[in-house]
Amino acid sequence: MSIASTNTVKPRKAVLEMPEYHPPLAGRDGLRLDFNENTLAPSPKVTEILQQISTSGLTKYPEREPVEKIAAAHFNLAASQVLLTNGVDEAIHLVCEAFLEPEDEALIAVPTFSMYEIYVAATGAQTQTVQADESLQFPLEKFLSAIHQRTKLICIASPNNPTGAIVSREDLLKIAAAAPQAILLVDEAYYHFHGASLIQDTKTVTNLIVARTFSKAYGLANLRIGLLAGHPDVMQYVRKVSSPYNVNGIALECLPAALADEEYIRWYSEQVRTGRERVEAELAALGIPYWPSHANFVLMKIGPKHKELVDAMRKRDVLVRDRSKDPGCEGCVRITIGVQEHVEQGLQALKASLEEIGWQAN
Amino acid sequence: MSIASTNTVKPRKAVLEMPEYHPPLAGRDGLRLDFNENTLAPSPKVTEILQQISTSGLTKYPEREPVEKIAAAHFNLAASQVLLTNGVDEAIHLVCEAFLEPEDEALIAVPTFSMYEIYVAATGAQTQTVQADESLQFPLEKFLSAIHQRTKLICIASPNNPTGAIVSREDLLKIAAAAPQAILLVDEAYYHFHGASLIQDTKTVTNLIVARTFSKAYGLANLRIGLLAGHPDVMQYVRKVSSPYNVNGIALECLPAALADEEYIRWYSEQVRTGRERVEAELAALGIPYWPSHANFVLMKIGPKHKELVDAMRKRDVLVRDRSKDPGCEGCVRITIGVQEHVEQGLQALKASLEEIGWQAN
Repeated sequence: MSIASTNTVKPRKAVLEMPEYHPPLAGRDGLRLDFNENTLAPSPKVTEILQQISTSGLTKYPEREPVEKIAAAHFNLAASQVLLTNGVDEAIHLVCEAFLEPEDEALIAVPTFSMYEIYVAATGAQTQTVQADESLQFPLEKFLSAIHQRTKLICIASPNNPTGAIVSREDLLKIAAAAPQAILLVDEAYYHFHGASLIQDTKTVTNLIVARTFSKAYGLANLRIGLLAGHPDVMQYVRKVSSPYNVNGIALECLPAALADEEYIRWYSEQVRTGRERVEAELAALGIPYWPSHANFVLMKIGPKHKELVDAMRKRDVLVRDRSKDPGCEGCVRITIGVQEHVEQGLQALKASLEEIGWQAN
Repeated sequence: MSIASTNTVKPRKAVLEMPEYHPPLAGRDGLRLDFNENTLAPSPKVTEILQQISTSGLTKYPEREPVEKIAAAHFNLAASQVLLTNGVDEAIHLVCEAFLEPEDEALIAVPTFSMYEIYVAATGAQTQTVQADESLQFPLEKFLSAIHQRTKLICIASPNNPTGAIVSREDLLKIAAAAPQAILLVDEAYYHFHGASLIQDTKTVTNLIVARTFSKAYGLANLRIGLLAGHPDVMQYVRKVSSPYNVNGIALECLPAALADEEYIRWYSEQVRTGRERVEAELAALGIPYWPSHANFVLMKIGPKHKELVDAMRKRDVLVRDRSKDPGCEGCVRITIGVQEHVEQGLQALKASLEEIGWQAN
C-alpha cells in the first residue's frame, strides 16, 4: 500500500527532543537471563487463581480500589498512600507527569535504569546526571552537592540496575532531607534480593515515594503490575494523573494471592541469593571482573569482546544483556540470576562461549 | 496510624488545576447496564486461549510487536500505523501527551466522553467546548467555526457517548481538512453497533487518528486493550511517549483470537441492534423521551426523578448510569444494551422502578 508522507502536525517540543528507547518487543526465545525476570514461574497460588478466572468477569472494567486496600494492608500502610500501576514503567511516568514542569530538573546517578531519563524527557524537564566512579557505588557526596533549587525529582534505584549496588536507608533519608523541594523516588524493584526498604518511611517523610514491582521476585512481568507508596499529600497528585482503569483485572485478581504467599517469595529470593554467590564465585575463578550485586543479576566486565560473548551465548539459547552503552559500563554484560538449574545452565553457556570467542583474563 | 500532613512538594500547575474524575472502582454488583460493557462474555475462542495461558509465560515481559502486526493486518493497515494501548483511556492520554503544549487548545462538542477533557487538562492545555442543541446531534456548523489557529487537538466520539449520535465520514473529513494544524482523534469505541469507520482514511489523512477499543463489543474491558490507528508520520510521536510494556501479555495473547472470531462480533452486535430497537420501542410506548442511538446504550430523559430511578433500579440489582451532570443532559439516565435476556431484565426493572417512584409521562 502507498502511504503519502507529508508531516503536517508537529508533536510537543519535548517529544521531538526525547531519546528513543527500543527494547526487544519480540523474539526472546531461550533461557531469558537478559531482563532480570523470575526465571521459573510465579507462586502456585497465583496459578490457581489464574485457572479460576471467570470469563464473564472479562467484560467488566477492573476494580482497583479493593486490591489497593489489600496491598496497603500488606505493607502496613494507609490506602491513601498506595497506588497500583501498570508496572513500574507507568509508575515512573506518572510521577514525572505529576511533578515535573519543563523548567524543572531531575537528578540521577548513572549508570542506572534508563527509563527515568526517558520519562523525564517526555515532560520537557532536563535530567542532570552524576557519574559513579569505577566502583559503580552510589556517588553520595557528589550527588548531594549536585542537588540545587531547580531539582524537583530525584530517582534512585536501590538495589540499582545494572550495577547491583545499594544506597543505605541513612543515605537516602539524607538525600530526602537535602532536597525538601523535590520528590525522592526510591525504586525498590529488586528489594527482595537485598531486604532493606524505605517503604515505612513514607508515613513520615513527605517527599519520599517508593516504587515496588511484581515483575521481578513475584514473577508477574507479563501481567503488568507495580505499586507506588508515598505520603498521602503527594500521592493525591500522582493518583490524579493516573487512569482509574490503569491496572488490568487479571493482575488485580492475582495480586492478593501473590502477596499472601510469602513462603514462595522467601524461597525464590533465597534461590537467587544462593545463585548469586555461585555466579560471583565462578566469575572470580574465571578471572572476569564483576561488581558485587544485591539484586537478581550480576554485571561483569568482558571488555572488547562483550558483543561477541552475547552472541555466542544466544547461539546456546541463553540470553544475556549487553550493557556496554551504559555510562561507565564499557565492555560490560549483565546476567540475570534465577533458580539453581538456570544458574547452572547460564554458567555452562558462559564458559563455553568464553572459550569459543577466545576470551582471556587480563 | 498517624500521618503527619505538611504539604511540601507541589505538583505541576496543570495537575493542581485539573478536574477530579471518580468513577466507581468497586461494588458494581448486579446486572451492569451502567458502563456500556458487553453484558455476556467475550468470544469462546478467547476463553479457550485464556484457559491455555502458560504460567511460566507470566514471568516474561509482554511482547507487543507481533500482536500489533496481527492487528494491523486485520485492519489492512501497515504496522507502523498501529499502536496497541492499555485501553482507550491510555490511548487518549498518549495522544494528549504527544501533541499538546500548555498554550494549545483542544476542541470537543459536548456532551461527550468525559476523559478527553481530563487528559487535555493534565497537559496544561485548555479545552474549548461546543454545546450541542437539544437534539444532541453533533453541532457541525458551530464546531467548524470554533476551530482556530491554536486548536491542536479535536476529539470526536462517533458514535458518541452518552448520546449515541454519530458524525458522518464526510463531516469528519471536512473537520480534518478544516484543521490541518490539529490532530483529529475519532474515537470509534462503539463502532460495531453502527458500522461506519474512518480507519482506512488514516492512510491518506495525515492528521487523523482513530481509536478502537476491545472493551465494548469484544467484551474485554477487564483485560485493558485498545488500539490507535493513524498515519505513520503522527503515530511515530504517540509511540515515542508510550511505554514498550504498556499492554499486558494476557490481553496480547487473547487479542488475535478475539479479532479472528468475526462471527462472534457479528452475533453480539446484532444482539445489541435488536435490543436497541426493543428498548427504543418500549421507551416510546412508555412515553419516555430518548435519543435514537447508534451505540450499545440509549440515553433517556427521566426528568427530576432521575436519581430516584437509578436508585430504584439498583434495588432491583440493575445498574444504570445517571448522566444528569453532563452538559445538556439534565434529568438523563443512560442504559446499556446487551444480549436479549439482559435487555428484558433491564426493561422489567425499568418498568417496576418507574412505577415505584411514581413517574408519569408529561
